[in-house]
Amino acid sequence: MVAGGLAREAGYRLLALTIDYNQRHRIELRAAQKIATALNAMRHIMLPLDLTAFGGSALTDDIAVPKSGLGDGIPVTYVPARNAIFLSLTLGLAEASGASDIFIGVNALDYSGYPDCRPEFIAAFQNLATLATKAGLEGRPIHINAPLQHMTKADIVREAHRLGLDAGMSWSCYDPTPDGKHCGLCDSCRLRARGFEEAGLPDPTLYATKP
Amino acid sequence: MVAGGLAREAGYRLLALTIDYNQRHRIELRAAQKIATALNAMRHIMLPLDLTAFGGSALTDDIAVPKSGLGDGIPVTYVPARNAIFLSLTLGLAEASGASDIFIGVNALDYSGYPDCRPEFIAAFQNLATLATKAGLEGRPIHINAPLQHMTKADIVREAHRLGLDAGMSWSCYDPTPDGKHCGLCDSCRLRARGFEEAGLPDPTLYATKP
Repeated sequence: MVAGGLAREAGYRLLALTIDYNQRHRIELRAAQKIATALNAMRHIMLPLDLTAFGGSALTDDIAVPKSGLGDGIPVTYVPARNAIFLSLTLGLAEASGASDIFIGVNALDYSGYPDCRPEFIAAFQNLATLATKAGLEGRPIHINAPLQHMTKADIVREAHRLGLDAGMSWSCYDPTPDGKHCGLCDSCRLRARGFEEAGLPDPTLYATKP
Repeated sequence: MVAGGLAREAGYRLLALTIDYNQRHRIELRAAQKIATALNAMRHIMLPLDLTAFGGSALTDDIAVPKSGLGDGIPVTYVPARNAIFLSLTLGLAEASGASDIFIGVNALDYSGYPDCRPEFIAAFQNLATLATKAGLEGRPIHINAPLQHMTKADIVREAHRLGLDAGMSWSCYDPTPDGKHCGLCDSCRLRARGFEEAGLPDPTLYATKP
């Protein structure tokens, strides 16, 4: 949401891509739709890609989402190569559409240690994007922007506020309750709640359990 | 087919991944199934991913496939970022399955000039694969193999023969005839036919028009 808001603020017209990878927290697809509308995206593509065919993650398999707080190491909520897959698809869409830039909201400060959220990963993908495409070969490489990468969650909350975006539109939780609340206990909920607290801004999120 | 045959010869057990991207030449999906069986793949995943949602290629759009012979520049049969998308998906599957190696049959000698068949692209993807994954972060990077990259088409035809693989199983044509023949005139058919000729081996392919 905030990465898109920053792109819009910088003057870009937006083409939004959401991947329906059969994630446990499918509710985020509805949130993506609301955000694309709020950001006046010219077009919003919802692409089905069933990653449960591969498995190997608590987000796509019958593996419990950890609820006891952030630990060391990469948690089971890591989806193998997910951001490489997402960015490659976005690269294909960007080139097919004649887009100059890609914006992705990865963050490597208040995060779960996923390898594919780190600046090294983004830099490696930029290099790949330049070599993988006709656009790159012809001297018009598509630029990968990750404007949240060095922000804290509190910074991101403040940016949402500054941009006039309703933070209640966005979704973080990996394990939503059946009635559509954030669980409040998964890593993603904990990081979210802490961000609002540190930013000193009201948290509009409905949590099943107070984080 | 030949890349998989070389992997099998080297002692790997195979997990085959085919992407059904709604390509014009869907007949290649049937070929992939035959080849996976012939190579004794432990499992063959056929993953639907509708790239016609993006467009921008003669292989996914209503754009005519060129038939007048190989020209300069990158042809309209280029699918934006296709091999980045395919390799990223394969990387996800490899990591989720605990596989150590990926084999891809790209070739940068007798080819159409696609940017994502070049050795620079494969090297950039290897770098990405190491940085994008938990396996890479933990010192067990998944290795990208492109054993055909420096071979001529004639070399590849010879390798198929040496490995005892029926070249009639494989599919090259971008614009098959309704009765399931290779058209004989697209770049991919021309490169295929020339490969058999230069190798001095019989070409089992049924062409609608002799290339």
